[in-house]
Amino acid sequence: MQPLPTRDEALDLDRQDPLANKRAEFLLDEDVIYLCGNSLGPMPKSLIPRMDRTLTHDWAKGLIGSQNSAGWFLMPITLGDRMAPILGAGEGEVVVCDSTGLNIYKALHAAISMQPGRNTIVSEAQSFPTDLYMIEGVTSLLPQMQVKLEGRDGDRVEELIHDDTAVVLINHADYRSGALRDVKAITSRAHSAGALVVVDLCHSTGVMPINLHDDNVDFAVGCTYKYLNAGPGSPAYIYVANRHHGKFSQPLTGWHGHAEPFKFEQEYRPAAGAAAMLTGTQPTLSMIGVAAGLDVLEGVDAIQLRAKAESLSTIFIRQLEPWCEGHGIGFHSAKNLDARNGQVALTHENGYPIMQALIARGVIGDFRQPNILRFGFSPLFLTHANAFDAAMHLREVMETGEWKNARFQKSNLVT
Amino acid sequence: MQPLPTRDEALDLDRQDPLANKRAEFLLDEDVIYLCGNSLGPMPKSLIPRMDRTLTHDWAKGLIGSQNSAGWFLMPITLGDRMAPILGAGEGEVVVCDSTGLNIYKALHAAISMQPGRNTIVSEAQSFPTDLYMIEGVTSLLPQMQVKLEGRDGDRVEELIHDDTAVVLINHADYRSGALRDVKAITSRAHSAGALVVVDLCHSTGVMPINLHDDNVDFAVGCTYKYLNAGPGSPAYIYVANRHHGKFSQPLTGWHGHAEPFKFEQEYRPAAGAAAMLTGTQPTLSMIGVAAGLDVLEGVDAIQLRAKAESLSTIFIRQLEPWCEGHGIGFHSAKNLDARNGQVALTHENGYPIMQALIARGVIGDFRQPNILRFGFSPLFLTHANAFDAAMHLREVMETGEWKNARFQKSNLVT
Repeated sequence: MQPLPTRDEALDLDRQDPLANKRAEFLLDEDVIYLCGNSLGPMPKSLIPRMDRTLTHDWAKGLIGSQNSAGWFLMPITLGDRMAPILGAGEGEVVVCDSTGLNIYKALHAAISMQPGRNTIVSEAQSFPTDLYMIEGVTSLLPQMQVKLEGRDGDRVEELIHDDTAVVLINHADYRSGALRDVKAITSRAHSAGALVVVDLCHSTGVMPINLHDDNVDFAVGCTYKYLNAGPGSPAYIYVANRHHGKFSQPLTGWHGHAEPFKFEQEYRPAAGAAAMLTGTQPTLSMIGVAAGLDVLEGVDAIQLRAKAESLSTIFIRQLEPWCEGHGIGFHSAKNLDARNGQVALTHENGYPIMQALIARGVIGDFRQPNILRFGFSPLFLTHANAFDAAMHLREVMETGEWKNARFQKSNLVT
Repeated sequence: MQPLPTRDEALDLDRQDPLANKRAEFLLDEDVIYLCGNSLGPMPKSLIPRMDRTLTHDWAKGLIGSQNSAGWFLMPITLGDRMAPILGAGEGEVVVCDSTGLNIYKALHAAISMQPGRNTIVSEAQSFPTDLYMIEGVTSLLPQMQVKLEGRDGDRVEELIHDDTAVVLINHADYRSGALRDVKAITSRAHSAGALVVVDLCHSTGVMPINLHDDNVDFAVGCTYKYLNAGPGSPAYIYVANRHHGKFSQPLTGWHGHAEPFKFEQEYRPAAGAAAMLTGTQPTLSMIGVAAGLDVLEGVDAIQLRAKAESLSTIFIRQLEPWCEGHGIGFHSAKNLDARNGQVALTHENGYPIMQALIARGVIGDFRQPNILRFGFSPLFLTHANAFDAAMHLREVMETGEWKNARFQKSNLVT
């Protein structure tokens, strides 16, 4: 076992951190240790002048003309192209639009439309629920489709794929544990059985290299409000591999997905490329948030992001590892970074009040049912001192029994 | 025929205008005559402090906690309740979410889910195209459904409704002419045939009284970026009559529509009421725009809006009526306000360059295929002098031949 880390060691890592200057690009209080960037990233400072210009110049003065002159109308496409390198994708393969759930709905239908005669969807019982709910939505209209879930119908997704499988929907990273799947291997397995793959990248985009081309992925979706720091509820994105362009259909046929929307034709003709996934008008003010989020990632090397997520979470884990068991705390995440996205999930039967006690100290993580404490290690704005201090706060909260006095309200809302 | 109006008459009407003080609530240049509020309303000044607080306080400091403390998570519901009186609806019947097209998709599916054995959708060939495209999307998955369109399969929607009709989708106001339909009469006709009704309110909400309860409407949808002034691409809304709550299903089953989203259950259970129409996470920054748009309408009497839309457009029409024919300009709109939403659409074979010449003068309307010049008369921020001057500008543009020299580029984008 490695020796316990020291705060000096953490400070030393911070001095060597090639991403250290990135924190100044966010408006984030110094006295907060924000470990919830895997839920909602903090605010990029560049959004302030961007939003000011959008409101007082582009909207107030440019008015409707800004659909063209400020590029509003094309933002789903231009932001998609700006995002493509982060995903290991190319121009015309990514559009920014709608929510992750809606994009899953479209991607599943698109994949099924390319697979006539195949009648099974394979996915994971432990998926983020919206993925499962959207599968229900799709099959409610396509009653011939069967669903096979890892954790319910078999132990591993790979085993469930067979010659009736139309599409496999997987999460790159599990939303609770951060556990990573081998996207390339599953895609290869699916393709060899003649199936297509949809990957949900919500919990990995912006924190590690993503290689959609190299991994031969067919469709992918993800949100922008986590590690892309695009703001609350910011629009999601959807990727369609070049080789599938013009070969799929999806039923959310709004006018922005039309080949020539301003011809106002009575019949739908899908646009070329990933733009056929566009539906209705996108929310411009929130799209400006996506632009600001991408500002911060401009020129950042995903390998550096991954390395820092590792060093941050390793400090935290090393500090807690020898101590956890004696306090009823378990590791829900793998300790080895190769197997997770960077976040660390711990378990405790009183996880909810423990997290509330941490939040009262300014250490902001979150809680997930039934007993999971999630700590996100976003490499763009956290320091190794933050990671070290967060572990020490958790120890103190447990050792003092402070969590027993934490004031909290059970809520049906965000926890 | 009435005498030509004078500018003094217009100024006199402005002095008597009970809504005159509303213009100061928008950031809008004095030298612009903005007749495109039926496409994108101008910016409410209250958005500046609202957005500043959202970015620098709620997001930057409140971080993920603002989902609860700033009310972000519930905004689709709270804004829906705030909007309900504008629609003649009650609490729990309206949610703000997604785009108009997506809400049409949900409403059509919901209506069809309540009408087993009925296999026809009735609508209008001259509808805004996204409505028709969404019908195509729905029927692509429900191949038993037939579509009958007014203007293709019959002269009037009313004639197309019969005992196989599941749902009737109509626009309250035509997007080009502004022509109004009698929603109450069509709904009554549909109900007597056992069909349900979906009304698209994009071109009437915020400019006239809407009476969804009194008219007995089943479902309704609309956007917020036109007469509600909520900003570019701001989220749309959807209405579900109380009597249908808990009795429909729709396939865009995202986690925000779940009865208890933070239980993270594997199976979908729809929320009560209109909230079952919610899908994924909504774009908060654009939702703040909806809040600001509603600020301006707070306490405004829809009857006053309607009266002013009439007096504005009447000044414009009276000034042009005796002159139009001699310049090849036709009336696409009814001259009588009872038959339209307030906007005025004219026709001319050179409509596009004529509109460009007007825009160069600061008179901003828009052009719609094939030959339509649209002039929106938004009662919240326009003056009667604006309406009078707009008509005079059009006369000058035509009489001087200025439009022949208008610089313009044909664009596939917003015109």
